[in-house]
Order: sequence, then C-alpha cells, then structure tokens
Amino acid sequence: MNGAPPVERVPKQDRSRATRQRLLEAAVACLAEHGWAGSTVSVVAERAGVSRGAAQHHFPTREDLFTAAVEYVAEERSTALRDLFPDGPTDRHAVVAALVDLYTGPLFRAALHLWVAASNEEQLRPRVTELEARVGRETHRIAVELLNADETRPGARETVQGLLDMSRGLGLANLLTDDKARRERVVAQWSEILDGVLG
Amino acid sequence: MNGAPPVERVPKQDRSRATRQRLLEAAVACLAEHGWAGSTVSVVAERAGVSRGAAQHHFPTREDLFTAAVEYVAEERSTALRDLFPDGPTDRHAVVAALVDLYTGPLFRAALHLWVAASNEEQLRPRVTELEARVGRETHRIAVELLNADETRPGARETVQGLLDMSRGLGLANLLTDDKARRERVVAQWSEILDGVLG
Repeated sequence: MNGAPPVERVPKQDRSRATRQRLLEAAVACLAEHGWAGSTVSVVAERAGVSRGAAQHHFPTREDLFTAAVEYVAEERSTALRDLFPDGPTDRHAVVAALVDLYTGPLFRAALHLWVAASNEEQLRPRVTELEARVGRETHRIAVELLNADETRPGARETVQGLLDMSRGLGLANLLTDDKARRERVVAQWSEILDGVLG
Repeated sequence: MNGAPPVERVPKQDRSRATRQRLLEAAVACLAEHGWAGSTVSVVAERAGVSRGAAQHHFPTREDLFTAAVEYVAEERSTALRDLFPDGPTDRHAVVAALVDLYTGPLFRAALHLWVAASNEEQLRPRVTELEARVGRETHRIAVELLNADETRPGARETVQGLLDMSRGLGLANLLTDDKARRERVVAQWSEILDGVLG
C-alpha cells in the first residue's frame, strides 16, 4: 500500500445510473405536485438538471418515464418497510401504522395521479395496470409476513386484503386535507380488530 | 269538471330544473369518462343538448358546474342507499355490500377525478374539500344507522370509519381493472368481522 489517496473516478455506468435515478425522483415529485397534465419529459428533465436529450436516452417516451418512476419508488418503499422491522414480525399496531403510512406521502400521490390518468389514456393503461398488479402482490406478501398472518386459515387472506384496501382509502382521504388525527384513531381500532381476527 | 283533457304545459321553472339536471348528469358522465382535463362547460353543454349560453346561465364557471354535479349525484346515491333498505337495518352483509357499491361506478370515478384535479388546482380545492367533508359526514351517518352500530361503544365510530375507508380503497382498486370477484370475497370476510365487533 502506498500513501496516495485513491483517485476519485466515477465510472460511466455509475454516472448513468445516477442520472436515471435523478430523473425518476424528479418524475415522482412532479407527478405528485402537478399531476399528469403538468408532467412532461421536458419539465422533469429540467427539474432533475438533466438535458432533454439525456432524459430521452433513458426514457424514450413519457409513459416509459412515469411508469418506471412509480415502480422505482414503490420498490424503495417496500425496502423501507422491510427495513423498519429487521427482526421480523413485531406488534401489529406498529405494522398496521407502517403499512398505512405507505399510502400517504408523495409516492401514493404520484401513483394516484398515474392511475387516474391511465383510466382515461389507452396508451398508459396496460402498463400501469400491470405495474399496479405487481406492486399489489408484493405489498400483500410483505403485509402477510409482517402481520404474521396464517394464510391457511379461512378468511386470513381476505382480512389482509381488506386492510390494504383500507390503507388505500385512508391515503385517498388524506389527498385534500390533513387527515392524520382521524387516521390514527382508525388505525388504533383496526389494529385491535386484526389482533382478534388473526389470533 | 268539463271533459277537455288538461293542457300539457311545462312551467318555465320546471323546464329550467330539467335543464339543470341534464347538465349535471352530463357533467358527471363526462368527468368519469374523460377526466378533468377533457371536461369543459362547452363539452358538457353539447353532451346535454343545451346551448353554451344556457349552460353558463345555470353555472357561471366550470368549478360551479362540477362541484354541483358531484354533489347532485352524491345526494342521489344517499337517497338510493336509504331506499334499498326502507324498513331500516337489515343483515350486515347486505349493508356492507351496498356501502361498498357506492364507491364503484360512475359517481365514484367522477368524484375521484375531481379530488385529484382539486389537489393541484387552488381554485377548485376549497369547494371540493368542503363538499367532500359534507358528503363524508352524511355517508357516515347513514352507515351507522344501517349497520345498527352503537356509537356510544368505544371503537364503534372508528370501526365504521375504517369500513368506509376500505370501501373507498376498493373503489380505487376497481379503477383500472374489474375487481368484482376479489371485492366480493373481501366484503364477505369483513362483514363477518364487523358482525363480531359491532355485536
């Protein structure tokens, strides 16, 4: 070993990955703040500090950019959820609160804008539908594990699904007003109900 | 009494009311099908077969038209829900299924487009927020009555709120795909759970 510091060199591949990530983060923020109509590749490229050409190199179409963006953050959130409980299942109230938190905040807002846009735009719809099904299955799987639910018991699967539907509904209720206080009371009550049902 | 048939005369006030109603129904259909961006007063007037001037006489702004439209159908649905069970509370499964049905179909789609648009448009936001709070309280009141829930019991209020949040989430899940089969299983399971909790 000699004493010289390592030369700071960012390989081309890493720079490309960093650019991609900046674009995806900017796309999610843009969609959550301005909606689909206000979210174009140009607007996102500018927000990310990336040239329009570089943006189009990564994402040839607006649909490519936004479905990739929502998928990217959905994966980030799954990871974050797992990392919250590194030692596996913990008390159910904490798990329910963490699951519900997945549906408030910028990811859910961005996804919601994308769903609503996709419901009217045939070009967007198949990709968003496929993405949503995949994210939904992944979230269900994590939820079952964290809630320590035995899916061989009749009704356990539908109980967890209903909880995730409730979480989505709570996220929607939070879109126009800060619904935190009410949400916390609902979460407390439904955590108790789940404890009784899941055993 | 003479034998002459009554002269068929539609009073001016009734004609005006009928025009207003046609505009409101066209606005809801338009919002559900084309979203906020595709829903202008002109488009709605044409769909309703009403002149643009007549439409603007009833609703001076686009915001007036669409908040009135969603409110109108929300009231129609509340009435429809009450009429489903004219003899008062019935079995809970039927009530839960009817509540959940409120959140699928064109009204919910139209309301969803309005909420998402309002979240980004300052002009729309206060009116939609106020409307939503009012419709939410009314729905909660009807739900408590139909479910025969005793709100003096701790947790009963939050149980019903959570059910309505779940209904909203199920409506959202139905936006991109036909989610009926899964929804029916979730409704069956949660009806049973509610029976246990509400007593």
